[in-house]
Amino acid sequence: MNYDIEESIAILERTPAVLSALLSGLPDCWVMATEGEESWSAFDILGHLIHGEQTDWIQRTERILEHGESKPFEPFDRFAQFADSQGKSLDLLLDEFTELRAANVARLKEMAIGEEQLALKGTHPALGTVTLSQLLATWTVHDLGHIYQIVRTMAAQYKEEVGPWLQYLRVLQESRISH
Amino acid sequence: MNYDIEESIAILERTPAVLSALLSGLPDCWVMATEGEESWSAFDILGHLIHGEQTDWIQRTERILEHGESKPFEPFDRFAQFADSQGKSLDLLLDEFTELRAANVARLKEMAIGEEQLALKGTHPALGTVTLSQLLATWTVHDLGHIYQIVRTMAAQYKEEVGPWLQYLRVLQESRISH
Repeated sequence: MNYDIEESIAILERTPAVLSALLSGLPDCWVMATEGEESWSAFDILGHLIHGEQTDWIQRTERILEHGESKPFEPFDRFAQFADSQGKSLDLLLDEFTELRAANVARLKEMAIGEEQLALKGTHPALGTVTLSQLLATWTVHDLGHIYQIVRTMAAQYKEEVGPWLQYLRVLQESRISH
Repeated sequence: MNYDIEESIAILERTPAVLSALLSGLPDCWVMATEGEESWSAFDILGHLIHGEQTDWIQRTERILEHGESKPFEPFDRFAQFADSQGKSLDLLLDEFTELRAANVARLKEMAIGEEQLALKGTHPALGTVTLSQLLATWTVHDLGHIYQIVRTMAAQYKEEVGPWLQYLRVLQESRISH
């Protein structure tokens, strides 16, 4: 399917409500659960999504529009949420993400990006040359990928509990849970 | 994590709102998209979840409570949704699922299943002996697994669109998309 900015925004603007419906009021045994080792909980992932709204997607979009390939994107801090989210409640994080995303989608719409601009190029600090449409498609897939990670992490908590049904449940087979 | 009926219900009762937040009003290019071949769209999956509410989870719970292992569960029809959903809108399916799930969660709560009953056994037509707690854990994981499948299927539509970011996006690497 070809990238389309309106179809992409339809995903981006729904993600806060999806995460609120899934996580608000949910017991901590689900929200704080990980797949072990260095893996992330839903709470951690929400902080990561917030940091993306603050430093990544819109900032990189503007960087491409203003500087093209000449000025590489700032590297993204994949661990910022561990300090940023400390002491905050899940509902506070959900509110923060909802507000930031709404503001960023509004900014994206105001930019009125057309077909020609989607082909503009930027420089990723590790991946090299990328296009604006690749950046915006990645923003969209990144949302879906973290919902995917959250529900897999939650499901994995019952890996031992489903008994022989395990063989029918791909989500459990694909979890690399280690505790 | 040990199976706990209240923690499990916390997931079960949220799923309709999660699917509504994700899918209601979303363009058909996402809702009807599959991963190719025999794979299912979000629309197909919603019909499958409805059929589960109508014929599977609560019925099997009652079968265990009434008959134990002596009377096997009815086999589940994994393809019923293709006829049942025909001609229906996505929003109608979301409403159907929301109503059926609310009624089934209410029935489950009325049953007031205790620890002793969770250990009761039933007979699955293919898997053999299972326990009530395994059935209820599977119901919960089944919800999460289908949200997982829906967001993976949607994400996969942009597999070609993300360019070099593909290497960072596990959700795309795990999709077996074939178109």
